[in-house]
Amino acid sequence: MRKFGIIGIGHVGVTIAYTLVTKGIADELILIDNNEGKAIAEQLDLEDAQARLDTTTQIKIQDYSELKDVDILFLTAGKIDAAKETGNRWAEFEFTNAMVKEVAPKIKKSGFDGVVIDTTNPCDAITQYLQKSTGLSQQQVFGTGTFLDTARMQRVVAKQFNVNSKNIAGYTLGEHGDSQFVAWSGVTVNSHPLVEFAKQQGKDLDYTALEEEIRKGGWSVYQGKGYTSYGIATCAVKLAEAVLSNAQLECPVSCYDKEFDTYIGQPAVIGKNGIEYVNPVALTDDEKAKFKNSAETIKSKFSTM
Amino acid sequence: MRKFGIIGIGHVGVTIAYTLVTKGIADELILIDNNEGKAIAEQLDLEDAQARLDTTTQIKIQDYSELKDVDILFLTAGKIDAAKETGNRWAEFEFTNAMVKEVAPKIKKSGFDGVVIDTTNPCDAITQYLQKSTGLSQQQVFGTGTFLDTARMQRVVAKQFNVNSKNIAGYTLGEHGDSQFVAWSGVTVNSHPLVEFAKQQGKDLDYTALEEEIRKGGWSVYQGKGYTSYGIATCAVKLAEAVLSNAQLECPVSCYDKEFDTYIGQPAVIGKNGIEYVNPVALTDDEKAKFKNSAETIKSKFSTM
Amino acid sequence: MRKFGIIGIGHVGVTIAYTLVTKGIADELILIDNNEGKAIAEQLDLEDAQARLDTTTQIKIQDYSELKDVDILFLTAGKIDAAKETGNRWAEFEFTNAMVKEVAPKIKKSGFDGVVIDTTNPCDAITQYLQKSTGLSQQQVFGTGTFLDTARMQRVVAKQFNVNSKNIAGYTLGEHGDSQFVAWSGVTVNSHPLVEFAKQQGKDLDYTALEEEIRKGGWSVYQGKGYTSYGIATCAVKLAEAVLSNAQLECPVSCYDKEFDTYIGQPAVIGKNGIEYVNPVALTDDEKAKFKNSAETIKSKFSTM
Amino acid sequence: MRKFGIIGIGHVGVTIAYTLVTKGIADELILIDNNEGKAIAEQLDLEDAQARLDTTTQIKIQDYSELKDVDILFLTAGKIDAAKETGNRWAEFEFTNAMVKEVAPKIKKSGFDGVVIDTTNPCDAITQYLQKSTGLSQQQVFGTGTFLDTARMQRVVAKQFNVNSKNIAGYTLGEHGDSQFVAWSGVTVNSHPLVEFAKQQGKDLDYTALEEEIRKGGWSVYQGKGYTSYGIATCAVKLAEAVLSNAQLECPVSCYDKEFDTYIGQPAVIGKNGIEYVNPVALTDDEKAKFKNSAETIKSKFSTM
Repeated sequence: MRKFGIIGIGHVGVTIAYTLVTKGIADELILIDNNEGKAIAEQLDLEDAQARLDTTTQIKIQDYSELKDVDILFLTAGKIDAAKETGNRWAEFEFTNAMVKEVAPKIKKSGFDGVVIDTTNPCDAITQYLQKSTGLSQQQVFGTGTFLDTARMQRVVAKQFNVNSKNIAGYTLGEHGDSQFVAWSGVTVNSHPLVEFAKQQGKDLDYTALEEEIRKGGWSVYQGKGYTSYGIATCAVKLAEAVLSNAQLECPVSCYDKEFDTYIGQPAVIGKNGIEYVNPVALTDDEKAKFKNSAETIKSKFSTM
Repeated sequence: MRKFGIIGIGHVGVTIAYTLVTKGIADELILIDNNEGKAIAEQLDLEDAQARLDTTTQIKIQDYSELKDVDILFLTAGKIDAAKETGNRWAEFEFTNAMVKEVAPKIKKSGFDGVVIDTTNPCDAITQYLQKSTGLSQQQVFGTGTFLDTARMQRVVAKQFNVNSKNIAGYTLGEHGDSQFVAWSGVTVNSHPLVEFAKQQGKDLDYTALEEEIRKGGWSVYQGKGYTSYGIATCAVKLAEAVLSNAQLECPVSCYDKEFDTYIGQPAVIGKNGIEYVNPVALTDDEKAKFKNSAETIKSKFSTM
Repeated sequence: MRKFGIIGIGHVGVTIAYTLVTKGIADELILIDNNEGKAIAEQLDLEDAQARLDTTTQIKIQDYSELKDVDILFLTAGKIDAAKETGNRWAEFEFTNAMVKEVAPKIKKSGFDGVVIDTTNPCDAITQYLQKSTGLSQQQVFGTGTFLDTARMQRVVAKQFNVNSKNIAGYTLGEHGDSQFVAWSGVTVNSHPLVEFAKQQGKDLDYTALEEEIRKGGWSVYQGKGYTSYGIATCAVKLAEAVLSNAQLECPVSCYDKEFDTYIGQPAVIGKNGIEYVNPVALTDDEKAKFKNSAETIKSKFSTM
Repeated sequence: MRKFGIIGIGHVGVTIAYTLVTKGIADELILIDNNEGKAIAEQLDLEDAQARLDTTTQIKIQDYSELKDVDILFLTAGKIDAAKETGNRWAEFEFTNAMVKEVAPKIKKSGFDGVVIDTTNPCDAITQYLQKSTGLSQQQVFGTGTFLDTARMQRVVAKQFNVNSKNIAGYTLGEHGDSQFVAWSGVTVNSHPLVEFAKQQGKDLDYTALEEEIRKGGWSVYQGKGYTSYGIATCAVKLAEAVLSNAQLECPVSCYDKEFDTYIGQPAVIGKNGIEYVNPVALTDDEKAKFKNSAETIKSKFSTM
């Protein structure tokens, strides 16, 4: 039986819930939110959908004790308005920090011993803080991190060549935030190394501009719809499925890095334990420096928590 | 190739879009909204999701000429805030009326000749108005109507007996609004006629209260989350799939009734032409009177459009 | 985590396996067959598929000890050739009887404590025998029974009226074999009682012929393809999903009947415990007699096991 | 509306049919086989399944005129027994050659103008012959070719490192037959070039043995189950979905190569036209020689047709 919990059912949380229900992924789903009326309404709306779906999901709300045997817990609480004003995810810090302080003990108390997937912002810092405050292992707690920024890189690069974004390989690494970067040296387009391929095709790519478009991908979506939901929810659900099926699937996520002693977006292998192991990929010296810089940025901000 | 259009990408429209994309139902999808920034943002967010999905959907925005060969067009534009203030879907009338006046000629001009599924409020009147103003046939234009209210009836009755809502048969009929009613005489629970079954089980059901819970189902969801999305979007997508596969699937929807010369929620068979035929079911005299009353309510309100 | 086991990977078993893998339903899947080479080949073939699917299923073979924490165990071993010669499922009796004698102790020894769904023939007798010989509860062990024959009734009746088989309600009851019968009194077509509706439509239905077409549905498929697989596998998977999600879904299946002290096809509610409870539906006296006759047929054949 | 045709409903064809039906991918499906009884039986079995599925697919059989507006036509007729005796796909040549001679004029006559996906053996030669004899364009006609052998390479390599086969990139190229080869220079494991990575991990891989395991992957499956079905059907369906959604998805398939004037397995981009363009990838000199050798093998065998 697949049992999921979601703490925070704003746009991201509830899109995850809808995805789990409409695709028949979840057998049981626990929704928790500070706004009880919202939890009741989302449960009703999802239950209205179920008479029209082929599958059934048991939905319960507001009960932390149900987390005891949850397999995957999504932490999605956020305060998007704070970030919107500034265009910087650290603006949500104060809110999410307080939120984690509130929920971590409750998670701990429930006896939860599954895997936590964190989508909150600033993702790397909050995920680390969550791991420390719940006492769950570093394997069990990870963040979506640059899995979404990598999807954005795939979208942006694919558009340059009119190819499918699923055929773009490579990574956006580092902070799920301003210090992130694309490791261009490893990006491929239909199996061709990007940089060479662009030259062959007579395309004069402005990598700085592309990187800005990727980095500001969330911001572009925010500006138009006031939040982001579909990209991030799809990423989170994919990671959850990898855990449940012990898929040993490699994806860039926010996980603990020993060298820099911080959570940071980097390739890792996802399985039943959450993070099975980190999978460091070859970087140029310049990319290594960017990774270090991003790690230090996260750390210094984290130290103020 | 399955090609869908959505006019109005508020909460309902975009949930339909996400469902079509995340479940791989749509090959091509056209999004149109008065707020171009919103259309751009939703396209970006859905494209961010696609690098993580197994299927691909081509998404285009803001181009009415693309409707020419669209198979299914969802009309979902609404102004939920108007309805929220009053708890009555007719409060959206002025807005949606003006919206239809604006979009109908554009649909017509595009050469669109597929099926329109309307989810806007007041659903019956707007669907009828849309049919008339586009010149599309009465078969081609129908509304979700009481398909959603029937799902709510299934949810509410199922909960009384702790059974699955998919095992509740029967209909909510009439207006997708206050004059709707449940045809209790035909409702069954796990194949048992409800009224007898409740007695056998020693359950003293308050049908008036249940009906109020069903009728106010949307309102309950509105109050908690500010809109409804998952139930209605799931209903709309199910109807669209029935059209595409020529499923001859019987569902209660808002369609034209000859006797009362109005669109109204009643069972009909859905296939490649949209409404294949109306499927009138047995009603008690009391239920017939309620149906007539609901039809007259819709008509009288429609006459003011 | 959803963990499934399948004992017997002939056409039915392996179609169940493929369905669980291709639709991403199973996280882990254990395949067991007397023919080890077949088990190895099916595992390879399913693993070849997985590089092209979005989801991952861990597949293991031939290890009874893995059944310990399996949620759903399908028993699908059969010897179709025996039945083919005679057109009677009891012809498989000797083979499946011996098979159950062989596998029941191994299931027991594994510590398995989930739900068994049996598709073998003669279904009712073998399911009962399996329940007794494993010591699992009557709730935990049930057969697909007339769930498939009911689907065939839906298909056959739907074709008479050119409607969707999903809109045909009612049941085929009794033995998954020659003594089965359709409870015509409860069959509905698009919510209309069948018998009246046919008259209204001026259709002079030959119920005996229809029932023969339904009863011989499996035989018709056998004759053309040498076995049946898609109908039965789809039924079995649907029941499994109902157990996993504790769906409280009502379906006709082969389960224990107290009055007649035998397993027999009748409506029951499916949930996390397997059979939650039997849901007897109204029958005419004639139908009651047929049910009794069918029960006695099963019992008398069972007594020879 | 998505309309598919399948000519040849042996194990591969009918598994494709079941996949299209059970996943709700097809709105309409035409099954054609020399054995009419088999076609009738498969239609019945698939229709038995549909009362239990959420989606509907219209299934028709044995009518070539229905191919007129089919979007995707699968050619899957084969004579596996011939190949089994020898372990060589060319042994099916005589049968499939005769089959194509029979069906090509019928396809042509129907007015079919969609995309053909060929899974028959010997795949490259038969696909080319089919293209020539139908007069359809080289874009419209392609074969699954080494898309399946690439999946097998992914499976075999993944197992060496206990990683997910979806994280293995690279290609098996050339003939879907004995002269195929793995382009090891481009294979990556979790983004690491295979050859280096294996060394780093202290793994001494025997590439010749791995290649033999890949090449004989089909043979291994044949030996255990008497045919292959799940891997190949999943590959074929994935390609079909790429065509329908104009996905511009890069995959290795059997398509026309100008340099060698033959169909051969190589990376190409799949979209609404079928083969949008060939996407040649970097090869070592040794790999180039193997590709040339494989092309010549196909050509010389083709010349005997």
